[in-house]
Amino acid sequence: MAAMSDRPSARTQTSFLFDLDGTLVDSVYDHVMAWHKALRDKGIEVSIWRIHRRIGMSGDLFTAALSRELGHEIGDKLRQELSDLHAHHYNTRSTGTVVLPGARELLKHLSENEIPWGIATSGRMRTAGPVLEALGVDPAKHVVITRDLVRYAKPDPDLFIACAEKLGTNIAHACVVGDAVWDMLASRRAGALGIGLLSGGYSVGELERAGAYRVYEDPADLLRHIDEVGGRR
Amino acid sequence: MAAMSDRPSARTQTSFLFDLDGTLVDSVYDHVMAWHKALRDKGIEVSIWRIHRRIGMSGDLFTAALSRELGHEIGDKLRQELSDLHAHHYNTRSTGTVVLPGARELLKHLSENEIPWGIATSGRMRTAGPVLEALGVDPAKHVVITRDLVRYAKPDPDLFIACAEKLGTNIAHACVVGDAVWDMLASRRAGALGIGLLSGGYSVGELERAGAYRVYEDPADLLRHIDEVGGRR
Repeated sequence: MAAMSDRPSARTQTSFLFDLDGTLVDSVYDHVMAWHKALRDKGIEVSIWRIHRRIGMSGDLFTAALSRELGHEIGDKLRQELSDLHAHHYNTRSTGTVVLPGARELLKHLSENEIPWGIATSGRMRTAGPVLEALGVDPAKHVVITRDLVRYAKPDPDLFIACAEKLGTNIAHACVVGDAVWDMLASRRAGALGIGLLSGGYSVGELERAGAYRVYEDPADLLRHIDEVGGRR
Repeated sequence: MAAMSDRPSARTQTSFLFDLDGTLVDSVYDHVMAWHKALRDKGIEVSIWRIHRRIGMSGDLFTAALSRELGHEIGDKLRQELSDLHAHHYNTRSTGTVVLPGARELLKHLSENEIPWGIATSGRMRTAGPVLEALGVDPAKHVVITRDLVRYAKPDPDLFIACAEKLGTNIAHACVVGDAVWDMLASRRAGALGIGLLSGGYSVGELERAGAYRVYEDPADLLRHIDEVGGRR
């Protein structure tokens, strides 16, 4: 038994790497509507469901996908204007930020069981800041990786890889928890285990087809089943 | 050949029965946010994705599903207050109503080809009215069945059955076009052919599992493939 406990715990220690919007806080639909408003401000009409299905991917990839649909380039100036308008509309929405059921309890459970966890979001600190505050997560005390800190966002694996590195855990033993197919794709590219949540509005089928190992409704449902995914209980 | 043309055309005449929100106009997400606001006004917290997945079903079933989730009854008074608040928030939203790509062209194509079509919505005229106006559909000239006119809304088949009856067509030869699983379920109960559209934010898989015969992106995509579903071309 002594030999076993001598093994470096980082080798087999499960860790949880969380997406933020739609995964821990109920903010996906607010982001969707904020992008829709920003685009309309600039005279660009895009159906709302198409925006919904792009949320959570890198902002640059989002505008690249948009360029493809519109059939013309979106230049750097317009890209920056859209980003500013989106941040403005998101931060001035009337609903405020609502933490998803079980999110605080899930993070508390992991902390109490000494299971490392961190947050990795495609968003920038200017929109993520107030959301983290609502969630009770202090970026000075917990590992939070935002778009500002890596070169490529989801579905590139960089955000999750940086998060695992900062936690000092092996990403091969990590569970990546997200609501979007972009999280599941990034998770696979990082060699982690993807866990899908329905709380961002994707379906079970879409998340499973993107490689989710398990799909739960929301953080509360994941916490109820935490023993299935290496979170003890 | 003479014998064939003597057959009553109503027997094999395809008709198209359309859902309204998310199918012809880009209003699903506005309805979602209006319900979310209405519920919060009354101190009721429900995650937004759960509201999204209920849009398009009868309002009474919506509140029944809500009661089940909250674990207590929603009385008639609260139900009416929520309905009024929802209508208020929906009608005062800032975005206005955007017609989905190809919606007007699709209806025009059917009219020009003398293929009967009508609209059957779970909504009431007080919210559907402005939407029909944006779409250029005059309820005095076209067949429009709203929740006010039938006893049970979707997923009950009554709305689509009433729509086919008013058109004087056989529902067994009708295509029911909708964005929600509730449309597909109602379509099957009515014995019609369900055609799903992604424009309300459901996935291909969810619509197919609910019985969709074909799934297209939006009205423009359906119009491009209209020959696949009996709309000639």
